[in-house]
Amino acid sequence: MATDFEWTRQQFTALPDVIYLDGNSLGLLPKQAAARVARTVTDEWGTMAISGWNRAGWMAAPRQLGDRIGRLIGAEPDHVVVGDTLSIKVYQALAAATRMTDRKVILSDTGNFPSDLYMAEGLISLLDGYELRTVAPDQVAQALTPDVGILMLTEVDYRTGRRHDMAALTQAAQTNGTITVWDLAHSAGATDVNVSAVDADFAVGCTYKFLNAGPGAPAFIYVNPRHADTAHPALSGWLGHKAPFAFDQAYAAGDGIDRMRVGTPPVIQNAALDAALDVWDQVDMADVRAASMALSDHFIAEVEARTNQLTLASPRDAAQRGSQVSFHFAEGYAAMQAVIARGVVGDFRAPDIMRFGITPLYITADDLTRAAEIIADVIEHDLWDRPEYQIRNAVT
Amino acid sequence: MATDFEWTRQQFTALPDVIYLDGNSLGLLPKQAAARVARTVTDEWGTMAISGWNRAGWMAAPRQLGDRIGRLIGAEPDHVVVGDTLSIKVYQALAAATRMTDRKVILSDTGNFPSDLYMAEGLISLLDGYELRTVAPDQVAQALTPDVGILMLTEVDYRTGRRHDMAALTQAAQTNGTITVWDLAHSAGATDVNVSAVDADFAVGCTYKFLNAGPGAPAFIYVNPRHADTAHPALSGWLGHKAPFAFDQAYAAGDGIDRMRVGTPPVIQNAALDAALDVWDQVDMADVRAASMALSDHFIAEVEARTNQLTLASPRDAAQRGSQVSFHFAEGYAAMQAVIARGVVGDFRAPDIMRFGITPLYITADDLTRAAEIIADVIEHDLWDRPEYQIRNAVT
Repeated sequence: MATDFEWTRQQFTALPDVIYLDGNSLGLLPKQAAARVARTVTDEWGTMAISGWNRAGWMAAPRQLGDRIGRLIGAEPDHVVVGDTLSIKVYQALAAATRMTDRKVILSDTGNFPSDLYMAEGLISLLDGYELRTVAPDQVAQALTPDVGILMLTEVDYRTGRRHDMAALTQAAQTNGTITVWDLAHSAGATDVNVSAVDADFAVGCTYKFLNAGPGAPAFIYVNPRHADTAHPALSGWLGHKAPFAFDQAYAAGDGIDRMRVGTPPVIQNAALDAALDVWDQVDMADVRAASMALSDHFIAEVEARTNQLTLASPRDAAQRGSQVSFHFAEGYAAMQAVIARGVVGDFRAPDIMRFGITPLYITADDLTRAAEIIADVIEHDLWDRPEYQIRNAVT
Repeated sequence: MATDFEWTRQQFTALPDVIYLDGNSLGLLPKQAAARVARTVTDEWGTMAISGWNRAGWMAAPRQLGDRIGRLIGAEPDHVVVGDTLSIKVYQALAAATRMTDRKVILSDTGNFPSDLYMAEGLISLLDGYELRTVAPDQVAQALTPDVGILMLTEVDYRTGRRHDMAALTQAAQTNGTITVWDLAHSAGATDVNVSAVDADFAVGCTYKFLNAGPGAPAFIYVNPRHADTAHPALSGWLGHKAPFAFDQAYAAGDGIDRMRVGTPPVIQNAALDAALDVWDQVDMADVRAASMALSDHFIAEVEARTNQLTLASPRDAAQRGSQVSFHFAEGYAAMQAVIARGVVGDFRAPDIMRFGITPLYITADDLTRAAEIIADVIEHDLWDRPEYQIRNAVT
């Protein structure tokens, strides 16, 4: 199918007088989400109560939602499930990976999202003799030494948007006998990631960024089919049990991806995710990726044509970039406050990064041209004219 | 304050033509919840997007909601936080407890909710030399041998409603040098549990049962103040970090209960919890406990006056019972189907338990009298008259 971006744009609630370039942090509200959530609360919980678990499909939803996300990341059907938070899913994947190798080094990079590193630290704090080793992102391939058991990376750097070469690194890891755990937080709905094609062992991600499922939306986990029935679920909750309602005393892992379920699914959050995926169901990720690359290139050109004070922090080659554009700017914190005050919403990441998310489902080239004008105007004029920013600069 | 149960009853959406005795599994919808959730989706997410994290208070909510739950379980302010699922919170408490003792036996009982046992199994599968030991519920005190490092119990048995003597067992554990982890799934909003008075080390619970926060509502965790700044957060997610938005590479546990936060809070579920707690804020737990005991006694008497085929599975002494009444009945599965078909919603737990939740916030003595009439009528007449139940009995 050819993706109709005019249609997708109409599916979202725009913020009045705002160009929203922060969909890589929290996606906009899909128009159908409010009604979907209201239906779940009022018509399902309110009229079915306990029977909603079956009658309204609450119990089955995590698998169905998982499959719809799976299509967007190249997963085989029946190998993705939603639930919990991304940090928990990172832990779950890592814990399973530790049981698949005797090696005790987990390799990651300093560009990884800190919570992934924290969760790895927490996991190995319970284990004997493990090491979490981090190297610079461009040093990962050569750091794949024979002692590395697990490679844990985030495909797209949350600050710069730099993509790892997921296919090459996964292949190199396999050659090295290393299990891969990929975080797709900034990839799902953003890039043409394909977990099946690259043969990743585990992948995890969240749904509140590019997937637009709302604040606190659940995470997802993918387990490669070759591990699906053997992966060890250290977070062995009852809904991952082979027969949750038999209430057996002993745990017996469920079949396939079901074993990665833990506790009761977040039914109301899942309703918002369901509405968000109704838009994604009409989208071809190849189209989204092509649009993202074109829009990002356009935005970089429009900004750079107007100011030379910003230094591109993202790769200039769109193929090596996720769906965001970041600039270094020494006064980035103050500048982003000023830009937001002028109606262009991006965000700041320490120490000096101004970050702008590119979400083709609801952002157009015209939006980005206008955003570039405002950003340049702030950088070239406003920032120096307004006393409040000068004061802020003086104290930060 | 004196609790006004006529007022509380009006705060819930009754199911038409149903006497709902399953609030111990999933509480009814508070009338304000739909509007509160809609506000969060439409007015907050829809108009604030990313800025809702601060402007709408999404980030602060887990602590505020935690304190409101804390009042209901006797916790000191600032020592309860909500998030994740109960299974995850059990794991988190157990993992922290393993770092507080060198002993490697976790004691629990065969009446514990299976997921608690499963999560303990999952945790110790990562550790060396640990044992999960289960004994019959009435054998717990004498099983507190010197090798027991952690005592993990659910205060109220999910099948029978039998309460443990939490004060005595916690005291006995302390005397034995054993850390306590209490699951309050069937206690919060149900009994006069007081974690501070009994000096529990850890307590966890869920909010979708008696607290009425809806399907998939988050869990909570309490950490005793004496451990608050030292408890080891093995699930060390970024929102438990001392400075989550500094994005440091290394984990540093947050102060006090904040360290038990993990990932992004479930904002929409939290909105429903907020509305549910608006009712609880007007309630004195002593009144609820007194009403629960009186209603339960009344229900037992009304049932037993009408049929002698049901055998009370719950303690007859209300002081030893949570807020549910369970009966053994050999044909319990079929009987519960028939009872539900007659508009009395309880549930069945294998092998032979018919379980009825007593929720004084929205259930009255008249409801229970009518429910007893229907139950007795089913047991004494319907069950044997209807071919479909006879068929079901024949095959199960």
